[in-house]
Amino acid sequence: MRQYIYGKNTVFESLKGNKPVYEVYMMKNVKDEKLMALAKKKNVKVNIVAQKSVLNNLVGNVVHQGIVAQVEGYDYYEIDEILSSIPPHKQPLLLMLDGLEDPHNLGAILRTCDSIEVDGVIIGKNRSVGLTPTVAKVSTGAIDYVKVAQVTNLSRTLEELKKKGFWVVGCDLDESQDYRAVDYNMPLVVVVGSEGFGISRLVKSQCDFNVVLPMCGHVTSLNASVATALILYQIYNSRHPL
Amino acid sequence: MRQYIYGKNTVFESLKGNKPVYEVYMMKNVKDEKLMALAKKKNVKVNIVAQKSVLNNLVGNVVHQGIVAQVEGYDYYEIDEILSSIPPHKQPLLLMLDGLEDPHNLGAILRTCDSIEVDGVIIGKNRSVGLTPTVAKVSTGAIDYVKVAQVTNLSRTLEELKKKGFWVVGCDLDESQDYRAVDYNMPLVVVVGSEGFGISRLVKSQCDFNVVLPMCGHVTSLNASVATALILYQIYNSRHPL
Repeated sequence: MRQYIYGKNTVFESLKGNKPVYEVYMMKNVKDEKLMALAKKKNVKVNIVAQKSVLNNLVGNVVHQGIVAQVEGYDYYEIDEILSSIPPHKQPLLLMLDGLEDPHNLGAILRTCDSIEVDGVIIGKNRSVGLTPTVAKVSTGAIDYVKVAQVTNLSRTLEELKKKGFWVVGCDLDESQDYRAVDYNMPLVVVVGSEGFGISRLVKSQCDFNVVLPMCGHVTSLNASVATALILYQIYNSRHPL
Repeated sequence: MRQYIYGKNTVFESLKGNKPVYEVYMMKNVKDEKLMALAKKKNVKVNIVAQKSVLNNLVGNVVHQGIVAQVEGYDYYEIDEILSSIPPHKQPLLLMLDGLEDPHNLGAILRTCDSIEVDGVIIGKNRSVGLTPTVAKVSTGAIDYVKVAQVTNLSRTLEELKKKGFWVVGCDLDESQDYRAVDYNMPLVVVVGSEGFGISRLVKSQCDFNVVLPMCGHVTSLNASVATALILYQIYNSRHPL
């Protein structure tokens, strides 16, 4: 299914990637030459438009920076596809997002996942943000590289992954230990809860252990994409010491 | 100057804090009893309103969750006030944001700063996001605890801080070292650049050293609030080892 993406970086990264880009729409007053050159090289037609309303009709009243592209829609992967694509000598690392709602958070998280080779992201089919144009924009292209699976039942998915040798680490306050105190050198699924409600009960019951970030201020939690990045980088760093 | 803030958590944290809250406006269908009890305890009038448009007139068409409050506007601090408020035995830690534009990033960064005792945040007067209601909401109350100074000339401010014994660490790719390879046990100013353009030339020239995060994917940078949190937590962790 085709869809529209927007924003200079997003369209640029999309043109650099492997997924089909069908057309680019660019405002007359933008004329980004680097982007036009890349589009030409990739044989993608660039439509120069005079009216902002043309772009707004395609993507709504968002900050599109005068650049929109029609691309092949974002596909989800099956868990098995993700598992079979993990390189043989790599310690597997999956991220499960339990009810994440904010597209800005998902976009930022995909960027982090791309940068430290998270093998795949698992999200629920209900009550969660999916791969939308806003997620694409905020991810600055990471959406094209990070494999995302959408599943109906997160807790059953964890159960199956555990049978395959994965350990499940929850980011949750209950019975938790400092995130620096843990040995992450095993196949892992990191579970992060929703912005408002944390990890749901059934998913929580599948966690083998919980980790928590040191916090000594007044507010009780960090932004979801920030907390996720801190845990993921801790895992990356412990697997790749200096 | 009074201003309006919105969102359930933001208003709740504001009522818990020390700054004056003048009035609360709550949609009839919201009736948050915990919040109403807290308002009553603090002698703050709660106006129950039937029409969403009443709240939209106060704060615009935003996700206010049916709750708005009129509060004393956010004050900026002077650098000297920040410096004199640092506890005597604490290793000072300041954060400078050079041209950050996105209120979601600033809000998330304030949350991180609150959680690991950053002594103050320095932002520029021009071309930077300031302390707006959106920043307040995203910060989930951290805005009431983290001291923010607004200065005209970032590079001169760094010059003066260096005279006072601070070291300046830039988050920049040029001549940088892995962020884990550095000894952070000295008075520090961490400098983070803007989302699109990084650290500006004059500010960069004041940096004593640069650090970089390991990244092995396709995208070239992380979200600004994510990158900032990773560096700040690294500093906190190295100062507070397990």
